[in-house]
Amino acid sequence: MKKAVCIISGGMDSALAAFRAKKDGNEIIALHFNYGQRTQKKELECFEKIADVLGAKKVVLDTSFIKNTSSSSLTDRTLHVRTSGLEEGVPNTYVPYRNGIFISIAASLAEKEGAQSLYLGVMEEDSSGYPDCTEDFIKKIEDAVNEGTKKETNIKIHTPLVHLTKSDIVKEALLLDVPLELTWSCYVNEDEACGVCDSCRLRLRGFKNANAVDKIPYVKN
Amino acid sequence: MKKAVCIISGGMDSALAAFRAKKDGNEIIALHFNYGQRTQKKELECFEKIADVLGAKKVVLDTSFIKNTSSSSLTDRTLHVRTSGLEEGVPNTYVPYRNGIFISIAASLAEKEGAQSLYLGVMEEDSSGYPDCTEDFIKKIEDAVNEGTKKETNIKIHTPLVHLTKSDIVKEALLLDVPLELTWSCYVNEDEACGVCDSCRLRLRGFKNANAVDKIPYVKN
Repeated sequence: MKKAVCIISGGMDSALAAFRAKKDGNEIIALHFNYGQRTQKKELECFEKIADVLGAKKVVLDTSFIKNTSSSSLTDRTLHVRTSGLEEGVPNTYVPYRNGIFISIAASLAEKEGAQSLYLGVMEEDSSGYPDCTEDFIKKIEDAVNEGTKKETNIKIHTPLVHLTKSDIVKEALLLDVPLELTWSCYVNEDEACGVCDSCRLRLRGFKNANAVDKIPYVKN
Repeated sequence: MKKAVCIISGGMDSALAAFRAKKDGNEIIALHFNYGQRTQKKELECFEKIADVLGAKKVVLDTSFIKNTSSSSLTDRTLHVRTSGLEEGVPNTYVPYRNGIFISIAASLAEKEGAQSLYLGVMEEDSSGYPDCTEDFIKKIEDAVNEGTKKETNIKIHTPLVHLTKSDIVKEALLLDVPLELTWSCYVNEDEACGVCDSCRLRLRGFKNANAVDKIPYVKN
C-alpha cells in the first residue's frame, strides 16, 4: 500500500487534506509539531483524535526551537494576537518560513518511511497572507526536496486545498465526513474559541458562506 | 553592517565557510544544531570556541526530533559507523534531508534577524556522497527560501567550499588563520579522534595532501 505523510495541525484544512490522502488510497503517517504555540495542548489533542479516526501512524515532534527563530505572536506571549479583523499584509502571527521547516522535516520522515507523498492543508486564497502557503512556493520546495534526497526517493507534495476558499473547505469536509467538531482553529484560547482572531474569523466566515453550523464552543459575547 | 547566518557544526568545513563570511565583511550569527549525534558534546564545545574567535552572536538549537525522522548511525547507537574505508554510494551516516532541515531553520533565523546571507560548509566533491550537499540542491532550496519568505526578504546562500577538495580546505584554512585545532570531525569519539571513520579519513587525507599537520589528538593504533 502506498504511504503518505500528512502534516496535521489540528485545524480544519490539514484534517481535510489528510482525509483526501486517505481517499486517494494511502496509508497515513500523521505528523504533528509542538512548537510552543499558544494553543499547543488543544491542537495536540485534536491531532490525536483526527489521526485515530484516520487509523494513522502518529508522529509528534518537538520543534520548540521555533521560538528562537521567530518573533511571532503565536509563540511570544508578550505580543498581541490581532483580534480587530482581517487586513492585507503579513500579520504578526507569521512564523518565518514555518512551512519550509515543516515540509523539510516531513520530507525527511517520508524518506525514512518510504512514503511517496506529502499532503498539506495550505491554501493560497482566503488565508492569512503567509508567503509559505502559495502554490509557487510548494512547487519550488518540492524541487528542492527531490534534489536533496536520495536518487530513488521521489516525493510528490499534494496541496488539494490550495485554491479552495474556507467555505469550499467546509462543504467538502462535510461531504467527506471529516469530523470538523474535532478540529480547532483559534489562535488564542483552548477551551472556548475567541471568535475574533484572524483564524476564528476565517473559520466562521467559511461556515457561514457554506450555510453550515460550527459545533465547537465559542466565547459568548 | 550586513549580517550572515553561518551554520557551524564544529568541523573544518563550516568553520572555514564562516571565516569567509567574516572576510566578506559580515557580522556573524553563528548557528549550531544539537540533534543527539554521537559527538554532540564535543561539537558544541568546538562551535563555542570557533564562534568566540569570530566574535559571533551564538544561537544553539535543539533539533533532536531528527532522531525520529532518520535511521542514521550518527544518531542511532545500535547501528555501526563504518570504519572500513570510503566507498561509493550514500553511507549509513546519512541523515535524510538534514541540510534541507538545517537550511530551512537558518533561513527562518535569517529572516528574523534581517540577515542577507547564509554561509554553509557543504562540499560536493571529496565528500561522503550525501545528496543534500550539491550545488544543484543549494540552488533549488535558495529559490524555495526566497519564494516562501516575505517579499522584502532576499537571502543568498553562499557555499564557498562546494567545489573544493579537503586538501584545498586545509590550505585555505591555514591561509585565513582558521583555528583548525579547535575543530572536530570524528563521527565516533569525543576525546581522541578514531582516525578510521569516513569523516576522519577525509580529514586526514586532506591534511596529508596539503602537506600539513593535524594537531588534534588521534587514537594511537
